[in-house]
Amino acid sequence: MKLSEIAKIIGADFRGEDCEILSMNTLKDASNNELSFIANPKYVKDMADSKAAAIIVDERTKEYVPASAVALVVDDAYWQMATLSKYFAAPLEDKDAPEAVVGEGSVVHPKATVANGALIGKNTTIMAGAYIGSQAKIGDNTIIYPNVTIYRDCVVGNNCIIHAGAVIGSDGFGFASNKLGEHNKIYHNGNAVVEDDVEIGANTTIDRAVFGSTIIKKGARIDNLVQMGHNCVFGEGSVAVAQSGFAGSTVIGRNNVFGGQAATAGHLEIAPFNTFAARSGITKSIKESGKTFAGFPLIDHKRWLKIQGKIARLIK
Amino acid sequence: MKLSEIAKIIGADFRGEDCEILSMNTLKDASNNELSFIANPKYVKDMADSKAAAIIVDERTKEYVPASAVALVVDDAYWQMATLSKYFAAPLEDKDAPEAVVGEGSVVHPKATVANGALIGKNTTIMAGAYIGSQAKIGDNTIIYPNVTIYRDCVVGNNCIIHAGAVIGSDGFGFASNKLGEHNKIYHNGNAVVEDDVEIGANTTIDRAVFGSTIIKKGARIDNLVQMGHNCVFGEGSVAVAQSGFAGSTVIGRNNVFGGQAATAGHLEIAPFNTFAARSGITKSIKESGKTFAGFPLIDHKRWLKIQGKIARLIK
Amino acid sequence: MKLSEIAKIIGADFRGEDCEILSMNTLKDASNNELSFIANPKYVKDMADSKAAAIIVDERTKEYVPASAVALVVDDAYWQMATLSKYFAAPLEDKDAPEAVVGEGSVVHPKATVANGALIGKNTTIMAGAYIGSQAKIGDNTIIYPNVTIYRDCVVGNNCIIHAGAVIGSDGFGFASNKLGEHNKIYHNGNAVVEDDVEIGANTTIDRAVFGSTIIKKGARIDNLVQMGHNCVFGEGSVAVAQSGFAGSTVIGRNNVFGGQAATAGHLEIAPFNTFAARSGITKSIKESGKTFAGFPLIDHKRWLKIQGKIARLIK
Repeated sequence: MKLSEIAKIIGADFRGEDCEILSMNTLKDASNNELSFIANPKYVKDMADSKAAAIIVDERTKEYVPASAVALVVDDAYWQMATLSKYFAAPLEDKDAPEAVVGEGSVVHPKATVANGALIGKNTTIMAGAYIGSQAKIGDNTIIYPNVTIYRDCVVGNNCIIHAGAVIGSDGFGFASNKLGEHNKIYHNGNAVVEDDVEIGANTTIDRAVFGSTIIKKGARIDNLVQMGHNCVFGEGSVAVAQSGFAGSTVIGRNNVFGGQAATAGHLEIAPFNTFAARSGITKSIKESGKTFAGFPLIDHKRWLKIQGKIARLIK
Repeated sequence: MKLSEIAKIIGADFRGEDCEILSMNTLKDASNNELSFIANPKYVKDMADSKAAAIIVDERTKEYVPASAVALVVDDAYWQMATLSKYFAAPLEDKDAPEAVVGEGSVVHPKATVANGALIGKNTTIMAGAYIGSQAKIGDNTIIYPNVTIYRDCVVGNNCIIHAGAVIGSDGFGFASNKLGEHNKIYHNGNAVVEDDVEIGANTTIDRAVFGSTIIKKGARIDNLVQMGHNCVFGEGSVAVAQSGFAGSTVIGRNNVFGGQAATAGHLEIAPFNTFAARSGITKSIKESGKTFAGFPLIDHKRWLKIQGKIARLIK
Repeated sequence: MKLSEIAKIIGADFRGEDCEILSMNTLKDASNNELSFIANPKYVKDMADSKAAAIIVDERTKEYVPASAVALVVDDAYWQMATLSKYFAAPLEDKDAPEAVVGEGSVVHPKATVANGALIGKNTTIMAGAYIGSQAKIGDNTIIYPNVTIYRDCVVGNNCIIHAGAVIGSDGFGFASNKLGEHNKIYHNGNAVVEDDVEIGANTTIDRAVFGSTIIKKGARIDNLVQMGHNCVFGEGSVAVAQSGFAGSTVIGRNNVFGGQAATAGHLEIAPFNTFAARSGITKSIKESGKTFAGFPLIDHKRWLKIQGKIARLIK
C-alpha cells in the first residue's frame, strides 16, 4: 500500500517521496518498508532507533520522529493505527493459494476442513469438524481433536495434542476507543505459535498477536477453558490449570505453574520456576524464582496462609 | 393450545369459556392470548395491570388475579410454568420452512450448516463448521468464524464478528426445583439478539431469554470465554474482558467496562460509564456513573487499594 | 501386553513367569490381569489387599508388594506409569468396528459424525457438527446440539440435553514431571458417564477419568463454561452455575448447589444438600449437610457476611 494512500485514509499531511508499505509493526520491530505508530508518549524512547518507514504520531510526539522516517501527524494515533490495521489484514482464506499439502501417514477426516495454503506434517490426525486455516502449519505426530479451530497463519508443532473445541489464533481483544464511546477494532495481523510437545485443553482459547506471535513454548501444558491473551509468551514446560487467564503481552518464564482460575494482568514478566496457587491474581512482574505465591493481591503463599488465620482470629 | 388443555396438564380447575393460548410471557408483557404466572408473591403488584388471558397462581396469590384473566390455581406455580414451557418450545429445526435465503455477495462454506428458514444478509461470510439455526437472521458484512453455533430464532446484526466456537442462543440456566431435589427445565422460548458492530470472542456463550430477548447492544465488545446469562442487556459500547460472567436478567448501561473474570449477580441494573476492575464481584445495582470499582464485595477502586495496604500493615 | 515387555519399557528387572496384562488400574480396583503402581508412599496401606498382577514401585515401597503381585522396581513410579499409559490407550477411532447403530426415530444430521462402534438410542437428535466417538453410547430422547464433541467410550443417558460446543470425555489434566521440568502425559483410559435427565451447558468441558469414570449423576444441572475434572463424581440433582470448576477426583454428594465461578480443589468429598455462594473456594472436604458457605477460604455464609462488614468498619 502506498504511503500516500495511507496518509489520505487517516487524514495526515504527506509530502515528499512516496513508497510502498508492506505491513505495520511496533517501533522496535518495524523494518524500513513498514509503518509504525506511537500511542503513548512513554514510548518516545523507542523512536530514535526505529527503522520504520513512517510513524503515526500526534502533536506531542511528532518532534521525536527520526530523520529516517516520515511523520504522519494525526489527532489520535492509536485510533488511526486501528483504522489502518484493517487494510493490512489478510483475507479470511486464500482462495487462490495451492491446495493444502498433507504429509505421509496423516489422516484428515472428510468432515474436517483444511484451507488452501495450509501444511500438515506426517502422521498427524485432523479429526471431524476441525478447521485449519490458510497458511497454517501443523507438525508431525500431532492430534487435532474434533471441532478445534486453528486460524490462518498459525503454527502447531510436532507431537502436540489439541483437545476438542480449542481455538488457536482468534483475534486479540484490542481496539481504540474515542470520547463518544465508540471502538475501532485493531486487526490482529500476527499469529499464534504452539511449539513442539504441547498439550492444549478442551475449549481453551489462544489469541493471535497484533504484530509478531503469541507463543506457547515447547512442552507447555494448558488445561481446559484457559484464556491466553494476544502476544503472550508461555514458557517452556509451564503449566496452566483450568480456567486460568493470561492478559495480553505477558511473558512467562519456563516451568511456572498456575493453579485453576489464576490470572495475570497484561504486560508482565514472570521469572521461571514459580508456582501460583489456584485463583492467584498476579498484577505485578515477578523477578524471583522458586517461590510459591497465592492471593489477590498476590503475596507469598506461606504469608497468605498466616493472614487468613489472623483475620479469622481478629474477627471472632 | 387450548386453555382447557393447559389446565388439564397442570391439574388446575378450569371452568368458563375456552380460548387459544399462543405463548407464555411475564405478567407485564403478556398480551390477551398469552398465559402468565406468578411464582413469587412480591410480584402481585404486577397482576392488576396484566393483560394475560390466564395466570398460573397458588393459594397465596389467587385473589389478585384481575377480572380479565382466568386463574389457574396450582400448588407450585413455578414448577407448573416450567412444565408448560416445554409445550410452547419450537422444534429444534423447522424442517418445513423454506430453504435459507443468502444475500448477494455472501459466502456460506459447504461445511457450514444454515437451517431452513434462516436469513443471511449481504457480503457476509459463514465459515466451515458454523451452524445457523432456523429463523435466525444474520446481517450484512458479518463474519461467522468456524464452529460457531447460533441457535434458532437468534439475530446477529451488520458488521459483526463472531469468533470461533462462540455459542449464541443456548438455553438459559433455569429450572424449577421441588422438595425431592428434582429439577423441571424451563424451556427458553425467547431469543438472543446481537446488534450491529459487535465483536464476540472465541468460545463465549450468550444464552437466549426465557421470554423476550437477551440483547448485546450496538458496538459492544465481548472477549473470549465470557458467559452472558439469559435476559441480560449488555449496553451500547460496553466491554467485557475474558472470562467475565453476567448472571441472568442484569441490565448493563452503555460504555461500562468489566475486567477479566469480573462477574455480576442476576437482576441488577448498572448505570452507564463505569469501570469494574478485573475480578470485581458485583452483587448490587450501581446507580452512579463515571466511577471505578474493584473487589468482592465491590467497593470504590481507590478505597479497595487503601484497604489492601492497611490489611497488609495490620498483619505484619 | 506381556508383563516382560512392560518391564523392558520402564527398565525394571523382571524374572519369573510371564503373563498378559490387559490394562492399568489403581491398587484398589486392579484385577489379576491388570498392572498397578504406587507413586506416593502414603498409599502403601492399599498394597496388601491389591489384586494387581504387578505393581510399579520404587525403593521405598517395594517391600510392601504382596506375594500375589510382581514388583517392578523403578526410580520414579509415577513417571513410568505415565510412560506405560500410552501403550494402553485405545486408538482415536476404531476403524474396524461395525458402523454405528442408530435407534428408531433418531436423527443424525448429515454434517454430524458418529464414529464406528457408537450406539445411538431412540428418538435422539444429533445436530450438525456434533461428533460422537467410537464405542460411545447415547441414550433415548437426548439432544446433542451442534458442535458438541463426545470422545470415544463415553456415555450419555436418556433425556439429556447437551448444549453446543460442550466437550465430554477430553483427557484429564494429568502428567508426571521430572527434575528437568519435562512432563510425561498420563493417557486417560477411563471415560466420562453422564446419567439420565442431565442438562449440560454450552462450551462446558467434562474430562474423562484416568481409570474408571468421571460421573455426572442423574438429574444434575451444569451451566455454561464449567470445568469438571477427571474422576469427579457430581451428585444426583446437583447444580453448577456458569464458570464454576471442579478439580480432579472430587466427589460431590446429591443436591449441592455451586454458584458462578465457585471452585473446588481436587480429591475432596462434599456431603449432600449444601449451597456454595458464587466464587466460593472450597479447599477442604465438607462433612456437614444443609449449610450455606461462601468465601475463599470457605466459611459459613452468615459469618462471611459479618466478616465483610467488620473489615469495612475496621478500615474506615
